[in-house]
Amino acid sequence: MNIPDKVVNRLTLYHYILEDLRDDEQNISSTKLARFLNIDNSQVRKDLKYVGNFGKCHVGYNAKDLKKSIEEKLGFQKTRDAFIVGAGNLGSALAKYDSFKDYGLNILAMFDNDSKKIGTTINGKEVFDITKVGNLSQRLNVDIAILTVPREFAKGVANYLAGSGIKYIWNFTPCILDVPGDIKVWNENLIGSFLQFTNKDEGK
Amino acid sequence: MNIPDKVVNRLTLYHYILEDLRDDEQNISSTKLARFLNIDNSQVRKDLKYVGNFGKCHVGYNAKDLKKSIEEKLGFQKTRDAFIVGAGNLGSALAKYDSFKDYGLNILAMFDNDSKKIGTTINGKEVFDITKVGNLSQRLNVDIAILTVPREFAKGVANYLAGSGIKYIWNFTPCILDVPGDIKVWNENLIGSFLQFTNKDEGK
Repeated sequence: MNIPDKVVNRLTLYHYILEDLRDDEQNISSTKLARFLNIDNSQVRKDLKYVGNFGKCHVGYNAKDLKKSIEEKLGFQKTRDAFIVGAGNLGSALAKYDSFKDYGLNILAMFDNDSKKIGTTINGKEVFDITKVGNLSQRLNVDIAILTVPREFAKGVANYLAGSGIKYIWNFTPCILDVPGDIKVWNENLIGSFLQFTNKDEGK
Repeated sequence: MNIPDKVVNRLTLYHYILEDLRDDEQNISSTKLARFLNIDNSQVRKDLKYVGNFGKCHVGYNAKDLKKSIEEKLGFQKTRDAFIVGAGNLGSALAKYDSFKDYGLNILAMFDNDSKKIGTTINGKEVFDITKVGNLSQRLNVDIAILTVPREFAKGVANYLAGSGIKYIWNFTPCILDVPGDIKVWNENLIGSFLQFTNKDEGK
């Protein structure tokens, strides 16, 4: 079953809430989950049906079970290896963002073209010369790249990655990539996200 | 008119494309915009109606006009001042992310509780003691905070900000904040975003 993007997003947020529950909180109601996210509790119940968890009348959801169902459905345990391409500020911050690992994203190595960065290690991840990406992608069986190069290099580097065995690009640059159709791109649009936030408020 | 989140997101992406056009490309078709984002061109036409730009048959959209309509509709020129709270890796990376300014987001200052960071300057932004946030929020008339503290401090710091005049929190921590109802929170859910990406592919 294909889960809509918004639902995947909210399932992750429910998981954050469940992570933070005290040990003595065995059950949680849809009303409580809804209040945290400032949404309707019928929406929470609908979302949780996607993970096959229906809760119990007057009791709510067993917190541990619910946490586990979300983890299984979204595949937190199924580790996905990825490279970070661009060892600048944002790339380094993401390399140091240890929460990724808890949710199944494992950064194996980083790439850059700056000889001062190549050979260094950021949070245990070695920075390799960008020309090595094809070789390492094949050897380590990695086809996901997190793209954090400066805007002006984004398109060129994306095409280079496409020719080096990378199949999925999580694009953090404010630039639309123009890669062959078999490469999947997911635009992490920070600016769009901020504008959603500020425009929503003005709409009220 | 309230623009749906997904449309705001795509309008920003169209703007990225328009930014990258060559000077001699005066017009752009909905088909070309659609191809870049791998979506249907009827969707592009629907989206662009939100900015009041309808294009011309057989000619498409005038690139300069379209860029300007998006900028006006989403308020790129209307600068919004903000603070970054948490001068760690992610906070510093965001402080150095100069593209924000082009889209109307102006980082005025940063805050931390680490005496080694307080008094330093990151990309021209001074790091202040977190206890100064109320005073500076009032003096500089800033009510937006970008929250990039470690997960374990997120809830406490968010409540402190809520009591210090901050009204909007752009939350980058993998944690659901529990702040008073008049504080608006926008969760920048990087992990959810990654899972949307990887789950979508498996659904295919």
